[in-house]
Amino acid sequence: MRSGEFATILRLKERFRSDNAAGILLGIGDDAAVLEHVATKASHKLVWTIDEQVEKTHFRRDLAGWIDIGWRSFMAAASDLAAMGAEPWCALSALSLPADFEDEDLDALARGQHAAALRLGTSIVGGNLTRGEVVTVTTTLLGTAEKPMLRNTARPGDGIWVAGRVGLAAAGLFALERRLHDDRLDGVKEAWLRPWARIGEGRHAAGRASALVDVSDGLAQDVGHIAEASGVRAVFDEGALREHAKRTGLDSIGELVLVDPLELMLAGGEDYALAAASEEPLEGFWRAGTFVEGQGVALKRTTGRERELFELGFDHFRPRM
Amino acid sequence: MRSGEFATILRLKERFRSDNAAGILLGIGDDAAVLEHVATKASHKLVWTIDEQVEKTHFRRDLAGWIDIGWRSFMAAASDLAAMGAEPWCALSALSLPADFEDEDLDALARGQHAAALRLGTSIVGGNLTRGEVVTVTTTLLGTAEKPMLRNTARPGDGIWVAGRVGLAAAGLFALERRLHDDRLDGVKEAWLRPWARIGEGRHAAGRASALVDVSDGLAQDVGHIAEASGVRAVFDEGALREHAKRTGLDSIGELVLVDPLELMLAGGEDYALAAASEEPLEGFWRAGTFVEGQGVALKRTTGRERELFELGFDHFRPRM
Repeated sequence: MRSGEFATILRLKERFRSDNAAGILLGIGDDAAVLEHVATKASHKLVWTIDEQVEKTHFRRDLAGWIDIGWRSFMAAASDLAAMGAEPWCALSALSLPADFEDEDLDALARGQHAAALRLGTSIVGGNLTRGEVVTVTTTLLGTAEKPMLRNTARPGDGIWVAGRVGLAAAGLFALERRLHDDRLDGVKEAWLRPWARIGEGRHAAGRASALVDVSDGLAQDVGHIAEASGVRAVFDEGALREHAKRTGLDSIGELVLVDPLELMLAGGEDYALAAASEEPLEGFWRAGTFVEGQGVALKRTTGRERELFELGFDHFRPRM
Repeated sequence: MRSGEFATILRLKERFRSDNAAGILLGIGDDAAVLEHVATKASHKLVWTIDEQVEKTHFRRDLAGWIDIGWRSFMAAASDLAAMGAEPWCALSALSLPADFEDEDLDALARGQHAAALRLGTSIVGGNLTRGEVVTVTTTLLGTAEKPMLRNTARPGDGIWVAGRVGLAAAGLFALERRLHDDRLDGVKEAWLRPWARIGEGRHAAGRASALVDVSDGLAQDVGHIAEASGVRAVFDEGALREHAKRTGLDSIGELVLVDPLELMLAGGEDYALAAASEEPLEGFWRAGTFVEGQGVALKRTTGRERELFELGFDHFRPRM
């Protein structure tokens, strides 16, 4: 960082000001943050997640502004809370920055994190700042939930229900990477640059759905997590996916970027949609298929034939533990 | 990572097994960990910290084994809880690893983290795994404290009290970096490779001392944080420091590595000692000086003269927010 560390921390403290957050007894400036957990209802559990976004793995500084990188990092972490049906409470941010990282870039990064935190009604109450060759943005979030949603509790006969759009962020990243300039691609670029965690939909699903995950690695992989953990088989419905692609405009985007919309939806992540297993329809979710007895993940063609989406063993682009 | 991601996570899950930890409803394997905060006493606050250790900034793989790197990273984060007088509860770990990182190295890293967690009676209940060009180990810890200790509450007349040894880890790092081979240096190398967070001493200080920090950047800087935040002046006593150097063997080590022991104690960090401001003596702490009216940090020579340790503005090697 160009300016002294104290000045930087004062600026971040100013930026992340959290005076009004419930239960925050001590924010930035000491060895740790202090929280009063009586701020949460006694019947609620704490839900706790961490997510790290690494330069050259998750973002490239020539493809996104620092404010976007800050926003995306925060939303990616918050999406894990959405996937548990939890309400975000507060966050810590650990930044690793090269020695020549400019103050104005740090300001933009923090502005993006702060905007995302505000958008979700949560606060950044502390963190860590260190040097490193590449930029890493690590966010840990505490949330609360009365009934946290798991992934290993789907049942045969449940529908595959999705909240939010899928495939658009992947199309956007594709357009950014290939430097495609076309006004019609602005929306999908925005989908990749400024996703948002579906907290409201997650809370709606909590207690109603039987299982829930967020979609960070594509529908196939993430719904596959439910299938594997629950010992059921996920069958996507091609007609439903094509209908979603039409409704979101992804079908015509697919033509612009020369990728099959189905591919974008099934294999492209980072829209941070939610995918639930549920017997009943969920408000704000659209139906993408069905869980049945068996194992694996398949796409049921409009012809009626099922195509296996994974053979034995598949690996994440962005693994999670 | 060489083996598939699922295999890796299963291995980490096995390693970090936390079946018996109080209040842990859900550990590794879903989108987030779930905690039951009724496990903590209602009068206790939650204390929350995050620390990131970055390859080439905080460690070099040619100077330390992965098991040491895992241990150190965990203890560095836990030390922030010690500095608040808090008791560790549980932790999340985010690892960024190069694609060619060997399974056995990951096992060693996790073994070190796990050993440190066990040593502190806490559990790693989740985390995140991602690719990155350099290894980063980020640890977030939740702890509990009835009366969290701050740094801005020291008063003139308080003594500077230190728990643990200081200067040894810096001598050890010096010896490792310069590849000095001498049996007499094994102890200080160990001090750098295997520090431990002074949880017990921190809890003892809580409610008795008026302010508390941990020493990660050297006595001068870290006690300087108390001085600056509290609006008092810290004056170290050369006689007391030399006495500590004699007691710990640092005086003879100083001769081996050709660095003045005073320099090692005042400017060398990573022993993760604790430094308190306290009117009364604290059990397990030794006295290193006095807080007085004024500002700044000084060393009072045995001749009686005071030398200012910092002029206007000083910067951290390992900044914190």
